[in-house]
Amino acid sequence: MKKINLEEKFAMFNEHWTPKIISELNDYQIKIVKVEGDFVWHDHSNTDEFFFVIEGTLFIEFEGETMELNAGELYVVPKGVQHRPYALEECKVMLIEPRGVVNTGEAKSNLTASNDVWI
Amino acid sequence: MKKINLEEKFAMFNEHWTPKIISELNDYQIKIVKVEGDFVWHDHSNTDEFFFVIEGTLFIEFEGETMELNAGELYVVPKGVQHRPYALEECKVMLIEPRGVVNTGEAKSNLTASNDVWI
Repeated sequence: MKKINLEEKFAMFNEHWTPKIISELNDYQIKIVKVEGDFVWHDHSNTDEFFFVIEGTLFIEFEGETMELNAGELYVVPKGVQHRPYALEECKVMLIEPRGVVNTGEAKSNLTASNDVWI
Repeated sequence: MKKINLEEKFAMFNEHWTPKIISELNDYQIKIVKVEGDFVWHDHSNTDEFFFVIEGTLFIEFEGETMELNAGELYVVPKGVQHRPYALEECKVMLIEPRGVVNTGEAKSNLTASNDVWI
């Protein structure tokens, strides 16, 4: 029975675009990730995806629109919606999605990360 | 396609212990709640429950232990585990749980709130 402190967890890694699992909620996983630079266009055909910005600014490009999420702001990307996250400077994000989701969704990319790393 | 700003959402209500839905993630709901004072002992027999403190300090009493969650800290209470949240001063919390969960779980209480209020 141990609480989770986000600042402590974020201090445990430096690499970008590699989500780390910090807890589970039934069959969902709470993940944190540091992002900077460009990610790839992708979608998740079977699930929505929760983005909550903890620090910095995350942009999510959609077809015809770009959303700017600052600290304290969140958005749930609906399943099947193509999106491309990017950040101009390092940004800290909480993600929530079902266990087993791959970060690049249906897209193949050298940014595809392991989806089973706990910290 | 509209982002959600937590500060704006929290400014829209003042009552305590009445979770408001701000978004959905598949069949899960993202809720925010302001709490102050004592809640009732209860459990949720079918689901875990995610607590993330946005501002202030939330205490969660378990049998034999009390957890103190400050801003930036989270805990997922496992299903079936009796717990009693309380706060000495007003505290702002994000909750995530499956659609339809009642705040007082298996307990009957005058603190039982509607589980279908969006803001």
